[in-house]
Amino acid sequence: MFELDPRLSADTYFVGSTALSSVLLMNDARYPWLILVPERQSVTEAFDLLEADQAALWQESMRLGAFMKRHFRADKLNIASLGNQVAQLHIHHIVRFHHDLAWPGPVWGIGVAVPYAEAEAERCLSALREALAHELPLLSPIQS
Amino acid sequence: MFELDPRLSADTYFVGSTALSSVLLMNDARYPWLILVPERQSVTEAFDLLEADQAALWQESMRLGAFMKRHFRADKLNIASLGNQVAQLHIHHIVRFHHDLAWPGPVWGIGVAVPYAEAEAERCLSALREALAHELPLLSPIQS
Repeated sequence: MFELDPRLSADTYFVGSTALSSVLLMNDARYPWLILVPERQSVTEAFDLLEADQAALWQESMRLGAFMKRHFRADKLNIASLGNQVAQLHIHHIVRFHHDLAWPGPVWGIGVAVPYAEAEAERCLSALREALAHELPLLSPIQS
Repeated sequence: MFELDPRLSADTYFVGSTALSSVLLMNDARYPWLILVPERQSVTEAFDLLEADQAALWQESMRLGAFMKRHFRADKLNIASLGNQVAQLHIHHIVRFHHDLAWPGPVWGIGVAVPYAEAEAERCLSALREALAHELPLLSPIQS
């Protein structure tokens, strides 16, 4: 039985599910920032997943990253699994712009998160769900 | 024709090659830190690689990460492609310990790199090459 880590839950909005993962929107309006959480219990490292799940996670991550770069016209994507503070395996996908606050450094440890206003979060989630629904390979079952 | 980015070259030692990538040791004795650089020209995002190369990179990254966790008895692996400062695609694999300098934050932006003493670097490279040579799947051609 998969349960989302309470801290991930508190820091994000739920966008939708893929074949393998929950897609979460980080509640930080400074950066378009999505997180993939494979819905598998008690896994902290990607290489501890079953091989088929590893392959599915990589495919989902690559598709999500490519989508975000295009959709947000990003200068760069940052993709990372750190997991020092939240052990549950989760992969960050962060849109970076040359003009963003932390550029060219990583986003972590720079200032504090700016939560979305409620209406802004709703608008953002709707737009993401609509755009992702057209990314059929992401939201339909992954072929193994 | 693949050429390693000059900044990556200046900041690292060359460990060896896999089927797809150069393996580099970051010249920072504070953390065991290896970098995979797919030997493909002008690629900045993993999702811009050909599909077969994407799959090979993921396999190499997972095998390297699992090796490092075991070899260094890491508490956690941090795996990340950022590329804000060096555009050439490269994937960081950083061994983290609960007692390291930056824990539980990411390593970037915390203090400055501590270069290896020459003898220490040689010892470290020899040990890594020997250990990785036994990781046959990593250093032999990847099956597609």
